[in-house]
Amino acid sequence: MNKPTLASLAAELNVSRQTISNVINFPDRVRPETRARVQEAIERSGYRPSAAARALRNQRANALGLRLSNPRNGISGSIMDAFTHSLVERADQSGYRIVLFPARTNEEEVDKLVELRRTLAIDACILTDTWLDDARPAQLAEASVPFAAFGRPWGAKDHGRWADVDGRAGAAEAAAHLRALGHERIGYLGWSDGSPVGKDRRVGWAQALCLSGDQEAELAVEVEDTVDDGAAGMAELLSRGATAVVCASDTLSLGAFTVIRRRGGSRQCIIGFDNTPVARELGLSSMAQPVDEVAATVLDMVLAQIADPAVELEGVLIAPALVARQGSALTG
Amino acid sequence: MNKPTLASLAAELNVSRQTISNVINFPDRVRPETRARVQEAIERSGYRPSAAARALRNQRANALGLRLSNPRNGISGSIMDAFTHSLVERADQSGYRIVLFPARTNEEEVDKLVELRRTLAIDACILTDTWLDDARPAQLAEASVPFAAFGRPWGAKDHGRWADVDGRAGAAEAAAHLRALGHERIGYLGWSDGSPVGKDRRVGWAQALCLSGDQEAELAVEVEDTVDDGAAGMAELLSRGATAVVCASDTLSLGAFTVIRRRGGSRQCIIGFDNTPVARELGLSSMAQPVDEVAATVLDMVLAQIADPAVELEGVLIAPALVARQGSALTG
Repeated sequence: MNKPTLASLAAELNVSRQTISNVINFPDRVRPETRARVQEAIERSGYRPSAAARALRNQRANALGLRLSNPRNGISGSIMDAFTHSLVERADQSGYRIVLFPARTNEEEVDKLVELRRTLAIDACILTDTWLDDARPAQLAEASVPFAAFGRPWGAKDHGRWADVDGRAGAAEAAAHLRALGHERIGYLGWSDGSPVGKDRRVGWAQALCLSGDQEAELAVEVEDTVDDGAAGMAELLSRGATAVVCASDTLSLGAFTVIRRRGGSRQCIIGFDNTPVARELGLSSMAQPVDEVAATVLDMVLAQIADPAVELEGVLIAPALVARQGSALTG
Repeated sequence: MNKPTLASLAAELNVSRQTISNVINFPDRVRPETRARVQEAIERSGYRPSAAARALRNQRANALGLRLSNPRNGISGSIMDAFTHSLVERADQSGYRIVLFPARTNEEEVDKLVELRRTLAIDACILTDTWLDDARPAQLAEASVPFAAFGRPWGAKDHGRWADVDGRAGAAEAAAHLRALGHERIGYLGWSDGSPVGKDRRVGWAQALCLSGDQEAELAVEVEDTVDDGAAGMAELLSRGATAVVCASDTLSLGAFTVIRRRGGSRQCIIGFDNTPVARELGLSSMAQPVDEVAATVLDMVLAQIADPAVELEGVLIAPALVARQGSALTG
């Protein structure tokens, strides 16, 4: 037997589709005997108004759009996968699914989100990978697409609809931890890409150590986010007298570790970022990003907007947590 | 200005919603002057029939359901994330989105998929993590939900709607590679969980080396999939005279590596599975799973079923590729 539809039921009962729709949505509008006959047929047939029909009626998809994040590299790419896992789990608890799609550019992402919203395939969306002067929040607001971002609106007007990891606080905690271990010259190994995330982490390191401008320039080295560049950067920092290092990523801390190990130093003088599986296996310390808290916060923010489009929201910074390690079976 | 809807347009033009719908879908049914007036208003207003309305009409969601895979551990969990990435990218090229949702059990997964299909939120689905006597394919077929699985129907009736990594061929290639390096006693370090995937890999190793039953029992050690258990298993294999090892996962090969390194051996006597970032960073050889080819194949399979529900399909095995490494900057 085919799945019953509004049309097949209407034909079978010899009533209009509108009558069946009324029985379901506005039973008072239908004469009692017709209502009883239609209700009985609906129950017997197993007919249920589809999500499409319900979405048409309530303008609700119970789905949130999320662009597939491009894995930047194999080591830290797992952060966005962990965020996606957490978001999918938490959204489900509120009755929402996640609609995943790819996009090559921010423009393509916004176009797809606006189209998904316009066609009732999603109710709202989550942005990730915010960047300097990110145009997406303003474009989505203009198109009335509710959103919340993992990542603050660097340089752009603060729309308040974001949660982010407080990288500055994380780098500061890492620097303070190294100083508590007795280090007096603590370097910073960061990214040369000019990313606002990287600059923010560098500020946290410099502030925690109360460095002068000259000291900061001397003890900070910025390179590409690769293991080899991390090794070269660490060698440079050692030549400048640093005895410990705060790294902007676990990729860089891995590179730093190759140098420290070759020279017989202790891995405890290195702290990376992202608490990746690699850092865990190698027994390297790292700042763990609170992706679960970020996912919970941005989800709350879009649900609040779905309930009340005019709701006022305020951005939230969540501090990462130090995972201190002293080695592993693998690396002694 | 609010987004125009079928209702607001109908009110503005003083025509019925059915008339507007007819202008869009069956223009011949509408008188020319009315048609012209409605078409002009539709263009001016920017009204577009929603995805919900189109889904109702064509019974097509242009979306595929996918259960969020539970990350088993931080090292090999990336395989399912890589598969998801590939699937999202490829589905998009065919005009399909991926609807991600969590499920605690296979039963909950099937219930959700049937409901998503019944309500036109998805057209078909992709299964992963198939297991012995997996009931999901039969249940979905019964409910007329098109599907294809990453993973063969171990022990169950062959429905033909699957693609899988040929782990047996992969383990055989790994064993042959180690023998070509001169090893004569090559062990197998596998899982004690009784998984069909693990058993299949063990068969590949034993067949490639033409082992007798006694030899196989002597040279195979099965443990939990942890680094510590991998180390203990490797120590046991060494005590039984093995000089090299095929591991069922990179987690186990990492454990094996800790033992080999401590004894001054070469990492080249170890081959893992999954070609994880950890193996790459440590310079360990590993069998790379062809997740991109698997994603392309299962996507083709569901699209074929959407086009023709009665299509006959045949399962596809895809061999993994050896990524041989001789070390890294990190581990010398």
